[in-house]
Amino acid sequence: MSAASQARKRRGPDDLEIVAFERGHFTSYSACGIPYWIGGAVADRDALIAREPAAFAKAGITVRMRHEVVAIDLDRREVIAHDLEDGGERREGFDELVYAAGAVPVTPDWARIDGGGVFGVQTLDDGAAIQAWLDRDPRPRRAVVIGGGYVGVEMAEAMIRRGLEVTLLEKSGQPMSTIDPDMGEKVREAICGLGIEVRTGTRVQGLETAHGRVSAVVTPEGSLPADIVVLGLGVRPHTTLAEESGIPVGVTGGLRTDLRMRVVGPEGRVDGLWAAGDCVQTVHRISGQPVHVPLGTHANKQGRVAGINLGGGYATFPGVIGTAVTKVCDLEVARTGLTEREAAAAGFAFVTASVESTSRAGYYPGASRMLIKLIAERRTGMLLGAQIVGRAEAAKRIDSLAIAVWNRMTVEEMTGLDLSYAPPFSPVWDPVLIAARKATDEVHASR
Amino acid sequence: MSAASQARKRRGPDDLEIVAFERGHFTSYSACGIPYWIGGAVADRDALIAREPAAFAKAGITVRMRHEVVAIDLDRREVIAHDLEDGGERREGFDELVYAAGAVPVTPDWARIDGGGVFGVQTLDDGAAIQAWLDRDPRPRRAVVIGGGYVGVEMAEAMIRRGLEVTLLEKSGQPMSTIDPDMGEKVREAICGLGIEVRTGTRVQGLETAHGRVSAVVTPEGSLPADIVVLGLGVRPHTTLAEESGIPVGVTGGLRTDLRMRVVGPEGRVDGLWAAGDCVQTVHRISGQPVHVPLGTHANKQGRVAGINLGGGYATFPGVIGTAVTKVCDLEVARTGLTEREAAAAGFAFVTASVESTSRAGYYPGASRMLIKLIAERRTGMLLGAQIVGRAEAAKRIDSLAIAVWNRMTVEEMTGLDLSYAPPFSPVWDPVLIAARKATDEVHASR
Repeated sequence: MSAASQARKRRGPDDLEIVAFERGHFTSYSACGIPYWIGGAVADRDALIAREPAAFAKAGITVRMRHEVVAIDLDRREVIAHDLEDGGERREGFDELVYAAGAVPVTPDWARIDGGGVFGVQTLDDGAAIQAWLDRDPRPRRAVVIGGGYVGVEMAEAMIRRGLEVTLLEKSGQPMSTIDPDMGEKVREAICGLGIEVRTGTRVQGLETAHGRVSAVVTPEGSLPADIVVLGLGVRPHTTLAEESGIPVGVTGGLRTDLRMRVVGPEGRVDGLWAAGDCVQTVHRISGQPVHVPLGTHANKQGRVAGINLGGGYATFPGVIGTAVTKVCDLEVARTGLTEREAAAAGFAFVTASVESTSRAGYYPGASRMLIKLIAERRTGMLLGAQIVGRAEAAKRIDSLAIAVWNRMTVEEMTGLDLSYAPPFSPVWDPVLIAARKATDEVHASR
Repeated sequence: MSAASQARKRRGPDDLEIVAFERGHFTSYSACGIPYWIGGAVADRDALIAREPAAFAKAGITVRMRHEVVAIDLDRREVIAHDLEDGGERREGFDELVYAAGAVPVTPDWARIDGGGVFGVQTLDDGAAIQAWLDRDPRPRRAVVIGGGYVGVEMAEAMIRRGLEVTLLEKSGQPMSTIDPDMGEKVREAICGLGIEVRTGTRVQGLETAHGRVSAVVTPEGSLPADIVVLGLGVRPHTTLAEESGIPVGVTGGLRTDLRMRVVGPEGRVDGLWAAGDCVQTVHRISGQPVHVPLGTHANKQGRVAGINLGGGYATFPGVIGTAVTKVCDLEVARTGLTEREAAAAGFAFVTASVESTSRAGYYPGASRMLIKLIAERRTGMLLGAQIVGRAEAAKRIDSLAIAVWNRMTVEEMTGLDLSYAPPFSPVWDPVLIAARKATDEVHASR
């Protein structure tokens, strides 16, 4: 819908007819807000909806709700859609097509059971289904969340807040494996502190059902009773329709595009075909590698870029650097750039520096401790990545570090950065600067 | 003391003897914390002290407290100091001298009155004197703060918190004239909301005294009764001793140094003479102009750079970009780079863009509104400056903008920045990105 809006801004209804197809019941909502709605921090589902179909209609954008596109015919320049309400079929011709099918939750075969109680957390319809399940009589008491990434951890917290007993299963050695183990350990403590049982190194083997719904999760260490199972195993790009119409995906499974979000096929750019959002792959600006990073912020930017270009303007999507942030209870967790493992995989030789500091001047009320870790290229000292774990006012400092990574600053240059200081906002040396100093020492020591 | 500590880290006591002279009663304290101590947010004076003289002694740094240096003899390589406790005189030879005399509050002739009740806010001794005055019997009831900059506004709030009636006098058209008038208006509202009477466009003509202490502030509009007067008229570099020893100051009144903080005199670098802190001038990286920016964060960095170099290492101080932050009640105010007036003075042609957004996703509890203004060079779109006025979690976003200014990013490139997003931390488009989008539109419109 970002693409549609931007195109409409540049070309009037007489110049460009815009039709959007949506399989579900909602447009333009915050999927990232679903765990907070489930957990109760956000009272109202409609608060998550940024723009209703009627608002788009008013702007001259036709939205065909509950229409599932089942085929794209690039030669005939038309899409075929099923009307999920009346079962009818609709063919719609196009000159330009924006493919923004998003992603689908990774769902192993064992998770495809008859009966209910197993949920992904991808769409607002998913959220509504979870809410309905939690409100059943008798009320579900035991939740098992499978996967300890952002969504898994956020949903585990949401379930605890709803009063369920919660077990979080993670196959790797730590939850939140998108940050380094030394930082992840703090997250594990915070999750456990909420009363969530965390089991790492656990591979799920299957589900058990009873009375037509899930009753347990089977692991090598035995069965875990469960009245509801939430899948937080990540998502994969939803590219089926594109592939069926002859567009091969990239190495990450996402569609390939150029900088202006024009789809790139086997013989170069595909005329009149655009793609944006969780279904595309992009480039990591630091590793130089193709990556699939399904985050709302990238999807929005890509949609905007596609819409501007489609509308006759010029904009590019420059790639990502792996910035992310979340919150577990009052623990804030953020990352940008490459982790140690990612830096090593990309081929970098690097040093690391971790420092503890405070969010405000130590003597100022409300100061809280935070841990910042920097990863810098050996020899050059270029900042490759950063991670923060702390309390209030900690995590958003990742944006400063993200902009430093983006600009390929060295940690030594960063020690001179003119960052804001006043006692209610930071120590006289902001934690970011203290970390840069320590990292500079490490770079020098490594030469 | 930063310089002393860094030099000591690199050269042992057998290799380098270090002696520091301090006129007052305290070393290494947070002068920026004084308003919060006066206002009561910080309970204890000692909380402001980072390091006691005894701690330096333990590290092999001799600190001669209550010694006022009265002369520097560069030819004989010695300083002459008065012991303020016993009245004696001490001569101390040196090979290398670090001049870090700081700044002195601007004190017009009319403020130099007999008797008490008129205070600058520069040293911890000043803070102690204010505290003692406020605790007098009968208690002061009416405070007049002269000057509406950071210190003036912070002190006005401190006085209100101590239960005094407070009038803030500012000679320009708005308090906080370090930000543009459109943004400053919000600050004025916040100050008035605290119950502080704000009078702008008011030039103080003199003070009245009674019974040996201040009793009123005289303005063209009449006399304002005052039991205590706080001067927030800024500071000027304390360079007297350097000038007397033949070192001319720069155009801003501060000492000139090279990038390694070596003092530059009429014939180039002065052998073995270093300077750091509020007594030096530095360069504004965006305007290219020499500036005097007396802030603790620069002073600390400069001291560290001087100490590293003096100790045989290598470090440079790269200049400033005018970042600053403060808080009035719960209103957060921040700036970086150039304001409109500064940009015009530097010769830039520019566009501006102001946007309102929220600190968190609009639907997430605790989201608060903020105003961000960007100033970008016409045609190139280079970010020249930024200002933020908002509530909790607003102001520290200035660091992101500062790093963008530092790296001479264009506002168009900024629209693609990979900043962190999750509902508790920002809308899906962070306010910084929304501002960059609007500024990009303005740049395009100006071409």
